[in-house]
Amino acid sequence: MKRPGRGRKVYGTVPGIKIGHVFASRQGLSEALVHRPNQAGICGTKGLGAESIVLSGGYEDDEDHGDVIVYTGQGGRKKDERKQTFDQPLTRGNAALVTSMTTGAPVRVIRGEPDGSGRSGSMIYRYDGLFRVVEFWHATGKSGFLVWRYRLVKLSTDESRSQEAQFEEPAGQDAPTRLEVTIQRVVRSTKVANHVKRAHRFTCQVCGIRLATPTGAYAEAAHVRALGRPHNGPDVAGNVLCLCPNHHTLFDFGMLTIADDLTITDRATGTEIGKLREAPNHRIDRTHLAYHREHHSEGWKHDTKD
Amino acid sequence: MKRPGRGRKVYGTVPGIKIGHVFASRQGLSEALVHRPNQAGICGTKGLGAESIVLSGGYEDDEDHGDVIVYTGQGGRKKDERKQTFDQPLTRGNAALVTSMTTGAPVRVIRGEPDGSGRSGSMIYRYDGLFRVVEFWHATGKSGFLVWRYRLVKLSTDESRSQEAQFEEPAGQDAPTRLEVTIQRVVRSTKVANHVKRAHRFTCQVCGIRLATPTGAYAEAAHVRALGRPHNGPDVAGNVLCLCPNHHTLFDFGMLTIADDLTITDRATGTEIGKLREAPNHRIDRTHLAYHREHHSEGWKHDTKD
Repeated sequence: MKRPGRGRKVYGTVPGIKIGHVFASRQGLSEALVHRPNQAGICGTKGLGAESIVLSGGYEDDEDHGDVIVYTGQGGRKKDERKQTFDQPLTRGNAALVTSMTTGAPVRVIRGEPDGSGRSGSMIYRYDGLFRVVEFWHATGKSGFLVWRYRLVKLSTDESRSQEAQFEEPAGQDAPTRLEVTIQRVVRSTKVANHVKRAHRFTCQVCGIRLATPTGAYAEAAHVRALGRPHNGPDVAGNVLCLCPNHHTLFDFGMLTIADDLTITDRATGTEIGKLREAPNHRIDRTHLAYHREHHSEGWKHDTKD
Repeated sequence: MKRPGRGRKVYGTVPGIKIGHVFASRQGLSEALVHRPNQAGICGTKGLGAESIVLSGGYEDDEDHGDVIVYTGQGGRKKDERKQTFDQPLTRGNAALVTSMTTGAPVRVIRGEPDGSGRSGSMIYRYDGLFRVVEFWHATGKSGFLVWRYRLVKLSTDESRSQEAQFEEPAGQDAPTRLEVTIQRVVRSTKVANHVKRAHRFTCQVCGIRLATPTGAYAEAAHVRALGRPHNGPDVAGNVLCLCPNHHTLFDFGMLTIADDLTITDRATGTEIGKLREAPNHRIDRTHLAYHREHHSEGWKHDTKD
């Protein structure tokens, strides 16, 4: 396979670079096209998504759990300062990671660590494989200012294999990848989720639609406060909504704000679009709604242009 | 872990039974709860989905490609006859496999093969792991009668691991599984698909909706004639629709019939719901629409009760 040239966008595996490959410097990473910028932690654009990220301990809010990473967006710091002094905007690299969630295209993850020389800031960088962005939200960082956060999950070996070897992207082309396949939406189900769907007879709590299939109706369960780190939402009925796929998508992107009186506001237009439908045996826990508002659908400006 | 009792439904991995475990008879499979019925190829119900299937060469239309199986539904044969003499109904085991696609719950696959004794019909059975149902359609079998067909794809090692060890289901309980997580909808994307989505500005060709996200609009690409075996649809723009997640779901379940004049009929109600939206630089190939009608949305009766 032809090696991509300098300055070319490369999504997925870089030909010839295996997981575990170590680079002695950011410059080496850049020359290999594994992570092209010399300073920024995120490589990518809002339009095409992120090619790669570097975790190097630069942000105090990052969490590294191995196959699951909670990554902090960029910005909010003045040039040459480590301390965050203003809110991070949802632009550039931060927007790129949201686009990666939309398209499902994989993101290369590089981890930096001290090179052992004892010199301050002297690091080596290891390519650690392909991850997908499964969630984004915002929070107040340790500094007191807004940060964007992303949950990335490592692709399984089988998935990674299907994303190898065809990743050179000619400059100027506006398709995000040459991937044959990318997984875009992963919808999970739990026993509690099935209970909630039955309580609503598979009817969307936002719009009342009920999708008929040959063997019954189809709906999706949305956890209001997500399971797992770092949200640690509980898998209980009060934390689950029964939604159609469309409103599930919008909910997960923070485009629906649900007030304690269950009024729903569409953030794209700023207008109220109705009230969340209730079922006699299913009560939504307001503390989880508040968590969703705080971390997903309030306190930031969005831009719906594409 | 407590072993499930006889007659109990077991979804996912049966505790203590590893991939490759060989059983000397159907009775052995049944006693181990790996595949409970002694004769039927599919174990499951329309309401809860399929627990397991056996591939044993009994149906002339099965295709076994290792990690991908094209499985043929049951019925259409008179008792004790091997030859199909009428259409297979979408009931019982056949409906169970559609439900498995809806819920995303994994299905155990068991393969039978002659036991080497040379005695006709004398078989051994191997448990070959968890698969998910990713597609179903109908076709005219080699006998000339309608058969239901299912595409099953093996779960990756990582996915299988997350589905182990909690699969006993108390009798009479109406939740399909105790799985912590199941993957329900896998949406794939290709470069061509991205082109089609842009041609329509991420607007659904069925309903005209456009879902706004913080970094642009969200739509899904639906291949009309599926890629891969056995459909071998091409990855070209004429074989792709730009749909919202709701209409993508309905399209994949065969609930939308699209005529050559692009009139759309909702199979749940039998009524016309409009015309497929077109874009100047995107023409749908009618031969693929015809294929979708023939194999997905015509020639069978559906039942939308749940």
